[in-house]
Amino acid sequence: MSFIRNRIIGFTLAGAVALGSVGTGSAAMETAKKKEDKKVKNVIMMVMDGTSSTATTLARWYKGEPLALDQIVTGGVRTFSAESAITDSAPAGTAMATGRKSNSSYVGVLPSVVNSPGADPVSKEDHFRPVANVLEGAKQTGRATGLIATSEIQHATPAAYSGHHMNRNNFEVLGEQQVYQNMDVVLGGGKESLLPGTNEKSRKDHEDLVKVIKDKKYDFVETKRDLNQSKSKKIWGAFSQRDLAYDMDRGTTNPEQPTLADMTKKSIQTLSKDKDGFFLFVEGSKPDWAAHQNDPIGIISDVLAFDDAVKEALEYAKKDKNTMVIAVADHGNSGISIGNSNTTKGYDQTPVSAYIDPLKKAKMTLEGATGKLKDDLSNIEESAQLYGLDHLTASEKEQLKDVKDKKAAASVFSKLLANRANLGFTTGGHTGEDVFLYSYGPKKPQGLLDNTDIAKTMAKAMGFHLDKLTSELFMDAEKAFQKAGARVTIDKKDPANPVLVAARKNIKAEMPVNKNIIKIKGKDYELDSVIVESDGTFYVPKEAVRLFKKYAR
Amino acid sequence: MSFIRNRIIGFTLAGAVALGSVGTGSAAMETAKKKEDKKVKNVIMMVMDGTSSTATTLARWYKGEPLALDQIVTGGVRTFSAESAITDSAPAGTAMATGRKSNSSYVGVLPSVVNSPGADPVSKEDHFRPVANVLEGAKQTGRATGLIATSEIQHATPAAYSGHHMNRNNFEVLGEQQVYQNMDVVLGGGKESLLPGTNEKSRKDHEDLVKVIKDKKYDFVETKRDLNQSKSKKIWGAFSQRDLAYDMDRGTTNPEQPTLADMTKKSIQTLSKDKDGFFLFVEGSKPDWAAHQNDPIGIISDVLAFDDAVKEALEYAKKDKNTMVIAVADHGNSGISIGNSNTTKGYDQTPVSAYIDPLKKAKMTLEGATGKLKDDLSNIEESAQLYGLDHLTASEKEQLKDVKDKKAAASVFSKLLANRANLGFTTGGHTGEDVFLYSYGPKKPQGLLDNTDIAKTMAKAMGFHLDKLTSELFMDAEKAFQKAGARVTIDKKDPANPVLVAARKNIKAEMPVNKNIIKIKGKDYELDSVIVESDGTFYVPKEAVRLFKKYAR
Repeated sequence: MSFIRNRIIGFTLAGAVALGSVGTGSAAMETAKKKEDKKVKNVIMMVMDGTSSTATTLARWYKGEPLALDQIVTGGVRTFSAESAITDSAPAGTAMATGRKSNSSYVGVLPSVVNSPGADPVSKEDHFRPVANVLEGAKQTGRATGLIATSEIQHATPAAYSGHHMNRNNFEVLGEQQVYQNMDVVLGGGKESLLPGTNEKSRKDHEDLVKVIKDKKYDFVETKRDLNQSKSKKIWGAFSQRDLAYDMDRGTTNPEQPTLADMTKKSIQTLSKDKDGFFLFVEGSKPDWAAHQNDPIGIISDVLAFDDAVKEALEYAKKDKNTMVIAVADHGNSGISIGNSNTTKGYDQTPVSAYIDPLKKAKMTLEGATGKLKDDLSNIEESAQLYGLDHLTASEKEQLKDVKDKKAAASVFSKLLANRANLGFTTGGHTGEDVFLYSYGPKKPQGLLDNTDIAKTMAKAMGFHLDKLTSELFMDAEKAFQKAGARVTIDKKDPANPVLVAARKNIKAEMPVNKNIIKIKGKDYELDSVIVESDGTFYVPKEAVRLFKKYAR
Repeated sequence: MSFIRNRIIGFTLAGAVALGSVGTGSAAMETAKKKEDKKVKNVIMMVMDGTSSTATTLARWYKGEPLALDQIVTGGVRTFSAESAITDSAPAGTAMATGRKSNSSYVGVLPSVVNSPGADPVSKEDHFRPVANVLEGAKQTGRATGLIATSEIQHATPAAYSGHHMNRNNFEVLGEQQVYQNMDVVLGGGKESLLPGTNEKSRKDHEDLVKVIKDKKYDFVETKRDLNQSKSKKIWGAFSQRDLAYDMDRGTTNPEQPTLADMTKKSIQTLSKDKDGFFLFVEGSKPDWAAHQNDPIGIISDVLAFDDAVKEALEYAKKDKNTMVIAVADHGNSGISIGNSNTTKGYDQTPVSAYIDPLKKAKMTLEGATGKLKDDLSNIEESAQLYGLDHLTASEKEQLKDVKDKKAAASVFSKLLANRANLGFTTGGHTGEDVFLYSYGPKKPQGLLDNTDIAKTMAKAMGFHLDKLTSELFMDAEKAFQKAGARVTIDKKDPANPVLVAARKNIKAEMPVNKNIIKIKGKDYELDSVIVESDGTFYVPKEAVRLFKKYAR
């Protein structure tokens, strides 16, 4: 549980239960409390973004030995979104974090379009409504919480476990919510979106969130070394302005960055000090990015890095015996296959080496190799060689000659390597097949699940109900305060930082949007959850109204 | 257990145990007997040939409701062969039937090439050596046995559960072994390979195996009606000269053929009368054939037909409570993906209907639709319409105009439909990704398995050891008879029907190859297993030597 929050407020929903409070307490928490002895203490939820079955199979061949994941295959997962057979990462993350399917780019909010057969209908008034996620639930039960990604930490999947916004690309909003989520450990990339500036992903609201993070007593670290040396119970690691390097490229390009396994291990060490248990979310973000580029090297690099993180999680879980570990791909990507048109004839006698040896020649991923390309492309053959394309044939050279820019170079590189390695790709987008489920520990999910079942299973194991939690954390501000005799307005004096204002007689409460703060009579109180604006409606936790009733008189 | 066999010989390995015989009895059987109370009574092994994860996902969307398979997802299966990352169906079947990986086209015999990392090495003297399969083991334990396929029954996968030969295409040998395997129920296609004649797959050895089947007191049936009306404990159904029609085409082209579910249901009804339990193998053969043609309609048609058969198996298993059901794909095929280059952008907002509606227009599979094509292709647009290609665009018409023959028509049809349905394909061959494992019942396999583990799990559950069984059923004839003081020769008077001859002094025993008969002093005795020739070496069951010792004096 958040140290800061307890210190400032000394009262939370979890606290309410512990103190035997009623009325303002949480029904979900009470129910949960009764069954406490049956609860799973810790949950580690791990996502390898955009990883089809072929990707793990190929990574295993490349590694030459079994994966950690191989120990815990337990079923399959259906991945479709509310509106499409093939999901975007935002609704996939939302489904696995909140138990609700959603739409493309929607993070932690309900869909406005539901047309997939079997998807729960959503009434018009609930469109865009924020829904609670399992990390928020874990916090409420007193567990420590952590969030890890190799992308920007504000990216869709980690955002779905820590924020609520209909536009996944709004790192400004999602990043701010994360900083005010009172998580205990946050590790990944995306420093640019924590600071004001003029870069593409810099904050335009002029807020310096790094300062806020430090004010909140996080140990703010930017290198592997500082991460490893931190003794803090609260760590915020921002190891890159944007995403972290692919595992295979790190040694060359970013040796100061930690691996996903490093981050996972440190997080577990830190979070497991909480006697109430912990929830940790871990994403290997970039198998997906590599798949979009049809880059098998990037896929293998970061599937294996993810697998190393799974190994860390399993080692802990096996020792602890009360930790559930779930690992999944959120969806397939790229239609990658072992075998392509080269092997339509002859696949049955083509040895493993025919696929793996060409891949083994690569020293860097496609991102890494093309990152070494000069603007005039004069070193294209050297760059190709870094990507394993040595001893170019006349035809291969010809194809490289036609390249006009770096993007085209990447495209040709990946085509040439796929051809050499006898791999097929059907698309630069995601794909819609069921993916494998990996799970371990008490009450682990098994069998064929819908992606929403993953969130529900975790919530049940940790002892809370997501729907009840949603009704406690995301009340329509206007209606909720109206019942308390107050009128709600939006203060847009600083348009980039709107403030929700609830006023009764001469007393008003100010709630800056995307933060977990309510200011009454000049004093800040921390809330269980952040204030969310979605499609023009503002949402507040029940506690905001309670505090308003208590102090605004 | 075979009624015939008991009647003629009155002595089998299983019988030996029951009578308390030792010495000539089976060590494997004795061990098994001790643990009888723990054994699984019935095992139903089901293979959907060449079915990738995408194929089952797509079939589910097409059907619009959950599959029977969805209830029993329990893990994954690695599919590689001894020599290749992508397996042929023959070594895949061999792995899942015998517990041993093998080579392309090898059925029920050990590989001569082992280069896959992790595959068990095989010493040179064991190359091509026949290895026992779980159906043979089930028979030895007194269980009734059955074999079902929608292809020719002699096809690689069913053959792997009932025969031994290094060339999967030798239906003459494999078909003969099957007839002499003393199975109780055999249902599928492949009548042509049971009869002499001049057709491509007719028998060139002049043997009329239909007569043999009838002599063996099978009820020989050729229609769904006759199958359903049969009251026999032994049924042989040959419902087509070659393969059965795709499920979707049957009503139009072959309404007298049973469905896979029909065959499965009848087999279970028949086999379950055996108090010792049963082993049933079921293959949905043609999802693979459709995948080779990149025909999503054929894939869906026969995945759903397979799923209906799984439903029958599960219904029985749920009632019986002592039946293990396993269902798997033997390998992926075609690199099919939901999503293709059309959806590289926009996949995240493309509804299920964009994939399914174009498929729903098809009235027949690619085989069915192109089967209606006239030789002069004059009705190509009608044929295309049968395949769902209605309201042809100018570009589509153009592509059809360029078609020169039926094969090209099929190729263009499938490309046009894949484009309309936003499906990708990477190859006309198999693919190498891990596939889902489906299982139900006591001692069911779970987690990530190697395909060989499937056979081992079934053998263990039924109470026998495959390696011991191999040493009992497939002894090197020359060595084995030498120890009995006999010399072995091959009688090739009828070159198409060689006979193994063991002679001592003036007494000789004749063992026609691919049959389970030993003739001594003019009398035929049935053996536990067939006489197999593999790469020039002949193999006999231990019982042949025992009978020789007993009667040849």
